[in-house]
Amino acid sequence: MAKEITGRSEDYSQWYLDIVKKANLADNSAVRGCMVIKPHGFALWENMRDQLDRMFKETGHVNAYFPLFIPKSFLSKEAAHVEGFAKECAVVTHYRLKNDPNGGGVIVDPEARLEEELIVRPTSETLIWNTYRDWIGSYRDLPLLINQWANVVRWEMRTRLFLRTAEFLWQEGHTAHATAEEAVTETRLILDLYARFAEEWMAMPVIKGVKTVNERFAGAEDTYCIEALMQDGKALQAGTSHFLGQNFAKAFDVKFLNENNQEEYVWATSWGVSTRLIGGLIMTHSDDEGLVLPPRLAPTQVMIVPIPKPNDTIGAVAEQIMQALRAKGISVKYDTDIRKRPGFKFAEHEMHGIPVRIGIGERDLENRQVEVARRDTKEKNAVPLAGIADYVEQLLSDIQQHLYNRALAYRETHTTKVDTFDDFKDVLDGKGGFVLAHWDGTSETEEKIKELTKATIRCIPLDAEPEDGKCILTGQPSRQRVLFARAY
Amino acid sequence: MAKEITGRSEDYSQWYLDIVKKANLADNSAVRGCMVIKPHGFALWENMRDQLDRMFKETGHVNAYFPLFIPKSFLSKEAAHVEGFAKECAVVTHYRLKNDPNGGGVIVDPEARLEEELIVRPTSETLIWNTYRDWIGSYRDLPLLINQWANVVRWEMRTRLFLRTAEFLWQEGHTAHATAEEAVTETRLILDLYARFAEEWMAMPVIKGVKTVNERFAGAEDTYCIEALMQDGKALQAGTSHFLGQNFAKAFDVKFLNENNQEEYVWATSWGVSTRLIGGLIMTHSDDEGLVLPPRLAPTQVMIVPIPKPNDTIGAVAEQIMQALRAKGISVKYDTDIRKRPGFKFAEHEMHGIPVRIGIGERDLENRQVEVARRDTKEKNAVPLAGIADYVEQLLSDIQQHLYNRALAYRETHTTKVDTFDDFKDVLDGKGGFVLAHWDGTSETEEKIKELTKATIRCIPLDAEPEDGKCILTGQPSRQRVLFARAY
Repeated sequence: MAKEITGRSEDYSQWYLDIVKKANLADNSAVRGCMVIKPHGFALWENMRDQLDRMFKETGHVNAYFPLFIPKSFLSKEAAHVEGFAKECAVVTHYRLKNDPNGGGVIVDPEARLEEELIVRPTSETLIWNTYRDWIGSYRDLPLLINQWANVVRWEMRTRLFLRTAEFLWQEGHTAHATAEEAVTETRLILDLYARFAEEWMAMPVIKGVKTVNERFAGAEDTYCIEALMQDGKALQAGTSHFLGQNFAKAFDVKFLNENNQEEYVWATSWGVSTRLIGGLIMTHSDDEGLVLPPRLAPTQVMIVPIPKPNDTIGAVAEQIMQALRAKGISVKYDTDIRKRPGFKFAEHEMHGIPVRIGIGERDLENRQVEVARRDTKEKNAVPLAGIADYVEQLLSDIQQHLYNRALAYRETHTTKVDTFDDFKDVLDGKGGFVLAHWDGTSETEEKIKELTKATIRCIPLDAEPEDGKCILTGQPSRQRVLFARAY
Repeated sequence: MAKEITGRSEDYSQWYLDIVKKANLADNSAVRGCMVIKPHGFALWENMRDQLDRMFKETGHVNAYFPLFIPKSFLSKEAAHVEGFAKECAVVTHYRLKNDPNGGGVIVDPEARLEEELIVRPTSETLIWNTYRDWIGSYRDLPLLINQWANVVRWEMRTRLFLRTAEFLWQEGHTAHATAEEAVTETRLILDLYARFAEEWMAMPVIKGVKTVNERFAGAEDTYCIEALMQDGKALQAGTSHFLGQNFAKAFDVKFLNENNQEEYVWATSWGVSTRLIGGLIMTHSDDEGLVLPPRLAPTQVMIVPIPKPNDTIGAVAEQIMQALRAKGISVKYDTDIRKRPGFKFAEHEMHGIPVRIGIGERDLENRQVEVARRDTKEKNAVPLAGIADYVEQLLSDIQQHLYNRALAYRETHTTKVDTFDDFKDVLDGKGGFVLAHWDGTSETEEKIKELTKATIRCIPLDAEPEDGKCILTGQPSRQRVLFARAY
């Protein structure tokens, strides 16, 4: 089974696509750039979504749902926003089909043309701020802390499953505040929440930072982000949280009466993560045998395999183990397929990234023990049946920690400080990864570096120490290093 | 507060819209026919969705996600389907906007015309069966039991919040089976599941039945449905489950090798319920003071109101009650707003349909008791603090049962057997409700009755007793009564 996967060292990009397909996560569809998220991939997304949703709710946010369509004119109302989002989008121009009078199936009815075209939402700031105008009158209506789980469409020309697709699933938070300070606090609260989710649940270490002007969200005053490093040394932007200032309030005329009875424009934030996280999860942990999943997000955490095949004795023990594991909230399945041999099953469950496999053979049972294999290191151990549930519980926790530590170690060995442009290029073309370097703070230099090396400034890290230095390209003075990388 | 609602007897339709708006469930949006589901409405939908999702999973179904867009040509592949769904739909013709060279904002880029138009899914049978072709090879791949939670668009001309909107949220199940029998069993299993959800969770009694040929889903061999009766005597189709035969398998060439190694077309079902259920929920239970919610679906089940305003003593008791209720899994909030008086709060929480209100005043506390009010009957009782959690738990269960009983009693008094066409019209124009009458089984008669009375055959009830009679319109022989009503 593992033979069906291209090795990472051979062709990383093909390896990624092989994992997505062989682990049954997603497929291309008949619609260019749109994917089908298969049941296994969707179960993973459900676990991610449910945990994020809990974290949003614990911090006082509520969910709502806003329309799929945005009137074309709305996009033009915020000047920077339209530049960023009006380019590649799906445009609805008609609302009816009719039978082709020439017998060619159905055709668009030319008489059913919309007066104003509708855009399938690429993001919902415009429509939501147009709505908030009706919901906000006074400081007593603030803050509004609303999130929505939705599908969005951006007409990407070059797509890759999960990482860049025309339609994707995401959550978008849109909050409204009485003061700039409160809105900035919210932006940072969500950034921290995203980082905690990435590290504690996805076992994916991230660097928190702020984007340069060039890389800001279209319409934001500041874009905060979490950046992760993939196994091929390229960076992935995993989540963004934007301080929008009063830009959308001004564009949609959303004012409130403050406590002194004066009218003010409302302050805004927006923030989102998407199914792209699944791409990041795959590229952080998986190997040449298939998917590797952090236990806290795995749809099935433990798979029990009878050796060589199911029978009553093994079945009874499996049932007993399942009950003990489920009592601890661990998800477990028993593989009773009689058509496949154990070796085939082992490879299959490894491909699917199931964190722990328990093999039960009759000989093991004579010794009152079972074989426990962990997916991450592929270590196997004979474990006494007595206390098996405690053992597995601890093992799942160890795997979660190990995956994080391994990814962190990779990132640490692939984060390099450089002080010259030659070294900069050498690192990018050699071991890759994050490069910490001085930059003169201008968009021109940033663009020139991108043009010469394909590397971008991923962020100005929030925890960067002040350090005087010289820009690697221009030699102009710099006060701190910024984080460069080639990125997805 | 309640004065803001139009009375049911005055204008039922306006009463409904008043409830939707004043209970903060939904709003119209800037996009014609599309609604904004507000946080309170969405929390209700989340509770409904989560419970249905649990029921789907308990019966072996898994979730997946399929694209929003359907290539236009797909709609034509199943002859009946295209007739039903190609009419009113949102058509994407372009994939880019550009700046208007004449300075008029953004315009559709005429050079970015799609080769084939894309339809925003009105339902996903076509795209899903096109995908299943790649997933199904042998009987070992069957059954496929897949559901998706998604937004769909049908370009309705006359819309009403929740009941009929251009975009709505729903779930659509799409299953594939090796035999017709298995597919029919699945169709019926889901019908029973929907009925159980409607009755046990929504407290909304339903009649299970099968649709006439005229009312069948476009592309189905049989459409099963649950039908509920609203307080104005009109029926609401609350859910449908379709046996699709091999129609979509044939249209999309989906075959499998059976156990005898012979190729066969796959058998299909599809089934769905939508945010329309929220409309049904409102119209089943609510009254002239606002929304009434069944406790099992209410986002907040208990609201504690300090009388006349919050203080430390009352706060400590409220905290104690909240802990005891939460330990029982009951959702409870404490209303600490100091700007509103108790009377105003009572009306507000009644408007929002919170099933139980607990009032705590200092004088009550001297007697170690609180005032408990139920939303459905508006009864109030002084209840000792000792054992309050048990009392409330029982009360929530009583309210749930009472709402169901009351709705069932309404339906029973509004279900009438008639044997003549004059009586038929009298009942429809008089007390309304369901009418059980004989029908000759022809589409012509069904259409004629609809034309004359605006009543449709809601279904042929599954539990109908055989009974010889004569069609109320034509006098032709009939073997059982069918269920007529005017409907939403």
